[in-house]
Amino acid sequence: MPKISDEAKQARRDAILTAARRCFAEHGYEGATVNRLERETGLSRGAIFNYFDSKDDLFLALAARDAERLGTVWYEEGFLPVLRAVLEEDPAWLSVYLEIGRRLRTDESFRERYKQRAPEIDKRIEASVEQARENGQLRDDISLKTLGRLMSIVADGLAISVAAGFPVEDPEELLGVVEEIIRPRRARSRTPARRSA
Amino acid sequence: MPKISDEAKQARRDAILTAARRCFAEHGYEGATVNRLERETGLSRGAIFNYFDSKDDLFLALAARDAERLGTVWYEEGFLPVLRAVLEEDPAWLSVYLEIGRRLRTDESFRERYKQRAPEIDKRIEASVEQARENGQLRDDISLKTLGRLMSIVADGLAISVAAGFPVEDPEELLGVVEEIIRPRRARSRTPARRSA
Repeated sequence: MPKISDEAKQARRDAILTAARRCFAEHGYEGATVNRLERETGLSRGAIFNYFDSKDDLFLALAARDAERLGTVWYEEGFLPVLRAVLEEDPAWLSVYLEIGRRLRTDESFRERYKQRAPEIDKRIEASVEQARENGQLRDDISLKTLGRLMSIVADGLAISVAAGFPVEDPEELLGVVEEIIRPRRARSRTPARRSA
Repeated sequence: MPKISDEAKQARRDAILTAARRCFAEHGYEGATVNRLERETGLSRGAIFNYFDSKDDLFLALAARDAERLGTVWYEEGFLPVLRAVLEEDPAWLSVYLEIGRRLRTDESFRERYKQRAPEIDKRIEASVEQARENGQLRDDISLKTLGRLMSIVADGLAISVAAGFPVEDPEELLGVVEEIIRPRRARSRTPARRSA
């Protein structure tokens, strides 16, 4: 086997991930069989599993890539741009996340690996949320845990809408309400709730 | 085949549904094979499909039953009791809803049947939400569509938390925030946001 450079390895790893994402999105988590992954990547299973130990590893690497991308949006631009990104996400790919809900609950090692998919990004988001609260950009009248859970619930619920093809009729009005939910309470008297047209 | 009464038919239909729900919850939508449905119900496929035309029909009948149960809670008690019911729902059964997201988007006839699973209840919820807005119990500064979508997003996002086994640390604080999100804006100045302990 000829030696290949680290750059070439990284490029091949990225190419496998991109093809695997297409395959998961098209066929679902269960339906993305090794045969289909071979066809979509154009590589043998030996070559694929030289880079990733298993289908779970492939998915978790893709989930880490998403967490890094959306996490960067979060701490650089804020929560609403994250929701905009969810609204623009491929519905077929979002469905894959919904399909692993059962695994997340019942397979403890999978859940731990999922939770640890992007630990550095998680720390940066947590720090940026705390900072935003200190700066008066986020409400601080509820616990950080409840605020975080609320934001997760809204992002996840929006992902279900997109994945199931239930249209959000007026995304801007919806995002306006979400903005109002997370902003500091003391700003309210100065900023009346917007009225719909 | 001996004739059985309408009551006996209804009782058998209910027993099939209850057993099928257990089967879906335990094995997932794909994993609930006809063999497993036979085992769980204790009936032959012929007997099962005498009451329901297909596995889809079984699931849609169960979804209708849920919609009726939660819909009744909604228009008799309000939205927060619906969220409490979601928090107490069987996580395994909630996972089944997440697993059908892809089908809902890609299979138009399935989506239409799902949307029409409980049309009477949907009408009653819609009427009760409109009534609650007129009575000043729900905010009316945003469109009815956005308010409805927001409530769906919160309920669905909460269902993901439950299904994936991500605990809601302080459900009462979370429900308090949701109450604040949906209540009329003019009530705000009289009712300060609660502070967490």
